[in-house]
Amino acid sequence: MALERLISSTAGLATPALVVDAAAADRNIAAADVRLRPHFKAHKRPQLMRRQLAGGDCTGVTCATAWEAEVAARAGLHDDILVANEVADPGGLESLRRAAAHARITVAIDSPRHVALLRGIECAVLIEIDVGQQRCGRDPADEAAIVALAERVQATPGLTFRGLQGYEGHAVLLPERPSREEQVARAAAILNRLRTVLDCELVSGGGTGTYDLSTHLDEIQAGSYVLMDTAYGKLALPFVQALWVWSTVISVAPAYAVADCGLKSLGMDHGNPTVTGGSVWFCSDEHTTFGPEQPLAVGDRVRVAPAHIDPTIAYHERMYLVAGEDVLETWPVDLRGW
Amino acid sequence: MALERLISSTAGLATPALVVDAAAADRNIAAADVRLRPHFKAHKRPQLMRRQLAGGDCTGVTCATAWEAEVAARAGLHDDILVANEVADPGGLESLRRAAAHARITVAIDSPRHVALLRGIECAVLIEIDVGQQRCGRDPADEAAIVALAERVQATPGLTFRGLQGYEGHAVLLPERPSREEQVARAAAILNRLRTVLDCELVSGGGTGTYDLSTHLDEIQAGSYVLMDTAYGKLALPFVQALWVWSTVISVAPAYAVADCGLKSLGMDHGNPTVTGGSVWFCSDEHTTFGPEQPLAVGDRVRVAPAHIDPTIAYHERMYLVAGEDVLETWPVDLRGW
Repeated sequence: MALERLISSTAGLATPALVVDAAAADRNIAAADVRLRPHFKAHKRPQLMRRQLAGGDCTGVTCATAWEAEVAARAGLHDDILVANEVADPGGLESLRRAAAHARITVAIDSPRHVALLRGIECAVLIEIDVGQQRCGRDPADEAAIVALAERVQATPGLTFRGLQGYEGHAVLLPERPSREEQVARAAAILNRLRTVLDCELVSGGGTGTYDLSTHLDEIQAGSYVLMDTAYGKLALPFVQALWVWSTVISVAPAYAVADCGLKSLGMDHGNPTVTGGSVWFCSDEHTTFGPEQPLAVGDRVRVAPAHIDPTIAYHERMYLVAGEDVLETWPVDLRGW
Repeated sequence: MALERLISSTAGLATPALVVDAAAADRNIAAADVRLRPHFKAHKRPQLMRRQLAGGDCTGVTCATAWEAEVAARAGLHDDILVANEVADPGGLESLRRAAAHARITVAIDSPRHVALLRGIECAVLIEIDVGQQRCGRDPADEAAIVALAERVQATPGLTFRGLQGYEGHAVLLPERPSREEQVARAAAILNRLRTVLDCELVSGGGTGTYDLSTHLDEIQAGSYVLMDTAYGKLALPFVQALWVWSTVISVAPAYAVADCGLKSLGMDHGNPTVTGGSVWFCSDEHTTFGPEQPLAVGDRVRVAPAHIDPTIAYHERMYLVAGEDVLETWPVDLRGW
């Protein structure tokens, strides 16, 4: 639908508006002082990824889907792009093939079936190991099968065995740092053992919650660190909230107020969002009912921090890079969910 | 991003794919044997709304946002379009103004401030009454204030007082029918009392879960009935699941399998989705880990029913109307969240 809603400054933003605080994002980029392969999936904005790549020690770009990799490769974001997931659908395989024309593509696999599916596509391969998340990856106890899989990759024309992926996704949001350390140590033991039987150029994994703990990895696939959300905000990491959903108060009652953001503008799997200056009661499709600390009026602007960044951004048509009340840039969010 | 992913039949669909079962949707349209003002917000597809309007006893179209109303009006869906929410942001008010050039627009308000904001826009007004949901609407005990608000509307050039809105959103998903009946009876008592002191052309409200209970209303604003979700599926309504997220198995382990849909393709506020032939363990951004009833292989197709339809559809770029394995139509989902 090509109906354009014009904006001139933050005062005129149609709400709910997805707003990136430029200064906060830049502080987060500077604070991530480890070797990163930043994850594109969190925001899918080439402009923001370029800021991350320019501001950090980065080995390449991580993508969640083949379609993201195709866009990243065509945009020339980096010449080393990793799809950190298994790809099995025909559309995804076609995207991989097209992406490989623009960059070195590496993709995760965990079975011989994936090798067969990738036949004819020029790419490198990481064998994914289940380090405890129970979401894709070979059982690390199947060492012989893992070695045989690497050999099968090497024997397949077009494919190159590059190394291992072990994502400690079950650890990244554990509230206590010692718990995260314990899970990371287990993952490290698994991957370090497999390194002794396989010739690995690269062992990749990690996330925002373990970015400084997973020193057994050659690179950290962090994504949320640059914009943050309230789930990661509880972990005492050196990153600050840089992403907000600005919303307008559309109704007030003596005990509560209602803002015009809701289930279609906020990822809800980690629970309710947080309203600056209020406490959230519940969300509906287009509403957030909350108890305000100070009286509010219809038309007032409120700032809402999402609980989970990735599925929040995926709802929005565009995001605004702002400094104070100035809109610096308007970015279309043109990749939807995958 | 103008990279097109071509499809020829359901076998070639890139997954996750949002799929509408045409026959099931048509059965649902026929089963909704009450006077409806079908809600556009659930799916936002003009093509589907036209099927609903043609197949039922419909008074007009309900929209959640001014932007939806603008699109519905420009598309000529109906000459009587209701925005069943308060509008307070500048972008929304501009959309109302543009929509009013194409159809009779009615909008909900609950305060004098809304009257001031609507000044200069040619539209009808429903005063929203809080019948128990605690989400917008005047306290029904403020009868004098409600009457004064109606008079203020009538005294404002361009505005017409049309009646009341009382949405029993707190009742529509109550699991037991007697509980829904009890809440509906309370809402009916409130609205019937106010009808005696106000000259109402229209009293609007209702939803899929109360579609046949809210006989005190002149029309039912149901939306979910046409496609359904697993939350409404528990209520023993005469509607069947017509919306699916088709997904591809990307990884299998002895105890579980992983499909390529997740938090960015499924609204999660009502909980996990349901996988046909399996039980869901957990969802990640791009994954659903589930225990399958029968062994599955990488590349197999699974059908996933979302728990909540509206925020699911809002994630998708397009939806496919299918009959068996044939794609009848491909519809862009071009309205995002609001």
